[in-house]
Amino acid sequence: MFYVIGLGLCDEKDITVRGLEAIKSSSRVYLEAYTSILMVDKSRLEAFYGKPVILADRDMVETQSDEILTDADKEDVSFLVVGDPFGATTHTDLLLRARSLSIPTRVIHNASILNAVGATGLALYSFGQAVSLVFFTETWKPDSFYDRIKENVRMGLHTLVLLDIKVKEQSEENLARGRKIFEPPRYMSVPQAISQLLEIEETRKENVLNPDSTLVISLSRVGGFPEASSPSDTNQNSGEQRIHAGTLSSLSSLPPSSFGDPLHSLVIVGRRLHTMEVEYASAFAADPAKWKEVAIQAYGVSGLD
Amino acid sequence: MFYVIGLGLCDEKDITVRGLEAIKSSSRVYLEAYTSILMVDKSRLEAFYGKPVILADRDMVETQSDEILTDADKEDVSFLVVGDPFGATTHTDLLLRARSLSIPTRVIHNASILNAVGATGLALYSFGQAVSLVFFTETWKPDSFYDRIKENVRMGLHTLVLLDIKVKEQSEENLARGRKIFEPPRYMSVPQAISQLLEIEETRKENVLNPDSTLVISLSRVGGFPEASSPSDTNQNSGEQRIHAGTLSSLSSLPPSSFGDPLHSLVIVGRRLHTMEVEYASAFAADPAKWKEVAIQAYGVSGLD
Repeated sequence: MFYVIGLGLCDEKDITVRGLEAIKSSSRVYLEAYTSILMVDKSRLEAFYGKPVILADRDMVETQSDEILTDADKEDVSFLVVGDPFGATTHTDLLLRARSLSIPTRVIHNASILNAVGATGLALYSFGQAVSLVFFTETWKPDSFYDRIKENVRMGLHTLVLLDIKVKEQSEENLARGRKIFEPPRYMSVPQAISQLLEIEETRKENVLNPDSTLVISLSRVGGFPEASSPSDTNQNSGEQRIHAGTLSSLSSLPPSSFGDPLHSLVIVGRRLHTMEVEYASAFAADPAKWKEVAIQAYGVSGLD
Repeated sequence: MFYVIGLGLCDEKDITVRGLEAIKSSSRVYLEAYTSILMVDKSRLEAFYGKPVILADRDMVETQSDEILTDADKEDVSFLVVGDPFGATTHTDLLLRARSLSIPTRVIHNASILNAVGATGLALYSFGQAVSLVFFTETWKPDSFYDRIKENVRMGLHTLVLLDIKVKEQSEENLARGRKIFEPPRYMSVPQAISQLLEIEETRKENVLNPDSTLVISLSRVGGFPEASSPSDTNQNSGEQRIHAGTLSSLSSLPPSSFGDPLHSLVIVGRRLHTMEVEYASAFAADPAKWKEVAIQAYGVSGLD
């Protein structure tokens, strides 16, 4: 059996009991380590599972999938994915490949940011399509996300913005020369995301986002507990979930340390905002009075204290 | 600490290791049993946890929340929710109430249908807002879901349709007379949902849904394994996940038994459909050739075999 197992969002204890049983029965265990990250090291997973974990980078998953699938028709093989297995299309690809080799497969689901974003207090049914925001370069600033956000904003829906991560990437030069030298991992921060969003608003000027009247909520390490910190981590609470609510400009002016370690996500609040959502998220606002004031004046929310 | 813990979608083993630890440390454990259901009985949870579980119906959660929260500032209390804790706004309400009583809270996330719907092979990023479909009565046929589906369809997005469940409901007569007599639980089936969708299309005639050219995918017991069947269940595989893909009319003509036991959900496929999504879901089609034909002709998908 080829198991594709979601690990949830934080650390080794977010796996399900069913997922852990599948790992225990597996002769090989792979960890997909390039579309997302857990908050803990591979060694901590290995200690918890009592067996070695093989890191699977993009290259391995996309070009050596048959190696991963070897003998999965005769024994159990587990492929671990941070969040839920269907968060990235790569994993669908792997399941298709297994199917074509007549290997039986099972998917063990878990939380992903797409539902855990409910931690903001925003209703999951008021979210439109999610968008991804990639790191801009000097010459490459893809802005199709802006149209998606516009569609959601026009309908009054919230938008989950997933922020880019770059793990085990090669520089253009190293790639061209075939040198397997990798850049240090990079994770987009909330202030950087806001800066990119506003840069595109400046260019497109379609009045989708406004620094002072668009409300946003940031999430870092959703579902994370203080004990989720890695032992090597000097900041004891770095594993703890952090949520901040405010306008685009107020969040971009918070000190970077207030967001804590990656991963970060951002929600652009839509106009179908309800009183209870505003109340719930006001606990995450640096300035709750201002948060409510914008909700009333720019979003037309009524019934607030 | 007041823990709100997601149980995932199927049975006792879908809880996370972290969630199970919280239950073990708790002096009282409540199970919210009216917005969704697991596939197994309370007794199976109790045997797995090694402690009693108190069923919390709507009445208890909405009017006796302080009883649930009693002493949660001094000891651990767990409140279990099928799927992810933020699937229903009721739980947000409970967390707000805890906050107002200065009781510390923690949410332990899990899979919900909102992300596990990826099991269809449809990309989660191509989903618009989710909608709920309630049981129609002779005199009450709320159709606001139709406008939401229309918004998604116009943008080419997929729509997850959550089907109504009625657990521990009173008849109007018993309610009026104050008699605590409850109707047997009811769960909307896929054919019934399709019939309601097409009934509203007939009335509204806005060309949002078409029996023969709108593709849909149904899901029953997502993430369910054969061993998830309840021991009292005579159908050994009733716990197993079932997915069917086809047009609205082809799914509505499948025998009811093909969908298996509740819960059922339905996805209305949007026009941003990609080749890989069609390929993946073709394994769930009773008639894969027809599935692909409609994808090509009505959805304009190219690159299929």
